[in-house]
Amino acid sequence: MNDEQEIRQLVSTWMAATKAGDVDKVLSLMADDVVFLVPGKPAMRKAGFEAAARAQAAPGGIRFEGSSDIQEIKVLGEWAFMWARLTLVAHPPGSAPPTTRTGHTLTVLRKQASGWVIARDANLLA
Amino acid sequence: MNDEQEIRQLVSTWMAATKAGDVDKVLSLMADDVVFLVPGKPAMRKAGFEAAARAQAAPGGIRFEGSSDIQEIKVLGEWAFMWARLTLVAHPPGSAPPTTRTGHTLTVLRKQASGWVIARDANLLA
Repeated sequence: MNDEQEIRQLVSTWMAATKAGDVDKVLSLMADDVVFLVPGKPAMRKAGFEAAARAQAAPGGIRFEGSSDIQEIKVLGEWAFMWARLTLVAHPPGSAPPTTRTGHTLTVLRKQASGWVIARDANLLA
Repeated sequence: MNDEQEIRQLVSTWMAATKAGDVDKVLSLMADDVVFLVPGKPAMRKAGFEAAARAQAAPGGIRFEGSSDIQEIKVLGEWAFMWARLTLVAHPPGSAPPTTRTGHTLTVLRKQASGWVIARDANLLA
C-alpha cells in the first residue's frame, strides 16, 4: 500500500475499533503527543482520551459508530494532513434512540515505525 | 526571520487586517485553494470567505477583533501546521455590547513565493 492507502486504512481501523469499544487498539493508532481539539472544551491529550474512551466502552456507556468521508489527503514525507466529513452515531445505553451528528475533521498524521498514526485532530462536530 | 517567526508575523498581520476590515490584505494571506472548516457549516473556500468578509467590512457590518495564543508551530519544509487558542471579540453595529468567544484553531500553512499563507483551517469557536 502507498501512504495514502495506509492512511485510509488507518481511518477504517480507527472506526472499526471505536465501534467495537477496543480502546487499546484505538490508542495504538495515535501518537504519544497527540492533541485533540473540539468545540467548547480544553485541548485533550492521550491520557484524557483514554480515560474518556474507557468510560464510554464500559458497560452502560455510550457506544459510538462513525464513518468518515475523506475529502483530501496530502502526504508531506513523514507527515500528512487530511480533512473529512464525519458522521457519528451515538447509541446511548438502554432504550434511548440513537443520535446522529455530522461535521468536518482536520487531522495531522505522522508516519512512525509502526505506521501512520493520528498526531493532531480538530473535530468540528458541535 | 526564520519560518516560525514568519508564521507568527502572518498571524499578527491577519489579526490586524481583520480588525481594520482590510479584506484585500486578508485575502492575500491565504492560498487560492484554501479551505475553512467551522462547526455546523459547509466547508468554505476563498470566494465564500471573500463574500462573507466584504459583507462584514461594509458599513453596518460586524467588526471582529481577534488574538491568537499560538500553542505549537511545526514547520515541514514548504508546509507547516499550527494550533492556537483564539479569542474573538465581535462588535455588532449600533450600541449592542460586544461578545467574546474563545476556542482552538488547527491550521495548515504553505510557503509560497510571496511567503507563508493559510491553506487549511479548522476554527472550533462554536
